[in-house]
Amino acid sequence: MTVRRADARRNYARILAVAEKEVAAHGAEASLEQIARVAGVGSATVRRHFPSRRALLEAVFSERISVLCDQAEQLSGADDARAALLAWLGALTSYATTARGMAEALTESTADSGAHVDACSARLGAAVDPLLRNAERAGAVAAHVTVTDLISLVTGIALATEHHDDPTAEAHRLLALTVAGISPRR
Amino acid sequence: MTVRRADARRNYARILAVAEKEVAAHGAEASLEQIARVAGVGSATVRRHFPSRRALLEAVFSERISVLCDQAEQLSGADDARAALLAWLGALTSYATTARGMAEALTESTADSGAHVDACSARLGAAVDPLLRNAERAGAVAAHVTVTDLISLVTGIALATEHHDDPTAEAHRLLALTVAGISPRR
Repeated sequence: MTVRRADARRNYARILAVAEKEVAAHGAEASLEQIARVAGVGSATVRRHFPSRRALLEAVFSERISVLCDQAEQLSGADDARAALLAWLGALTSYATTARGMAEALTESTADSGAHVDACSARLGAAVDPLLRNAERAGAVAAHVTVTDLISLVTGIALATEHHDDPTAEAHRLLALTVAGISPRR
Repeated sequence: MTVRRADARRNYARILAVAEKEVAAHGAEASLEQIARVAGVGSATVRRHFPSRRALLEAVFSERISVLCDQAEQLSGADDARAALLAWLGALTSYATTARGMAEALTESTADSGAHVDACSARLGAAVDPLLRNAERAGAVAAHVTVTDLISLVTGIALATEHHDDPTAEAHRLLALTVAGISPRR
């Protein structure tokens, strides 16, 4: 029984890791069959862990939000508050450019999965808030900026660069512009 | 014959004006029947001027791009190059928040209408370039910013605020942040 449970945990982790990569490459429409194949398990095993495409997408989304939360928590102890905030914004941008259509797929399908996205946003907000407060105390961020503002701006950049030849590079370039300002007051 | 032609021109202008408002309110899926009703013409008249929904959307898009080009040209003569650029960015943002799904609808449908969007973008780029060069000479804009960058950033803001309670107000707030910078160097 214990061996079986350890097997199941390993399978779950492997399917989730493969699913993250497939979703990054192909968006919310990533093939479940392809995920099973690359993870080296049967379709039935995928279905046992993730009864629906939405369950799998929610798990991938949740996992990536957890990584962003962990990064925010680690960075909130850094000495250079500005560099820490910019490092986290960079990580968020990299995430957003590979999360193609995922949040949209989750929010559009049902009110229920909308609640899941909201819960993830709240979790992210709580994790990033100390980072933002540190930057504020250091005078390193514009007044009244909220975590939601940061997420909106980065999400917008990701959406606007989706069809670019190199979306990640272009998104980071536009992020740098947004950080420095198109026309900052001198 | 002349009277008929003048009538046709008036109908065309009236249908286009109504279509702009309907598209602003309901996006690319705006009802052609509703447009005919508000314009006070029959559906056959709408179809005679605009044989397809795409033809109507293209005309609306083209008309709004022309307005943005005119605004850019007028503003490029202003004394305060920074204020002029920001005024135009404000106009672009107001446009983008009411152009819901239009560019997407035009680019997604066929390669042909994609070419129409490209032509409009080129026209807009040429009109805004003097405004951007003036701001550059006045040291009022970040180095190496292109018209495409400005359009990408504003488009992203419009997309990211689409589901907000007050999209236009929120988009202008995020534009102000992008102009001033999230974390400008002091």
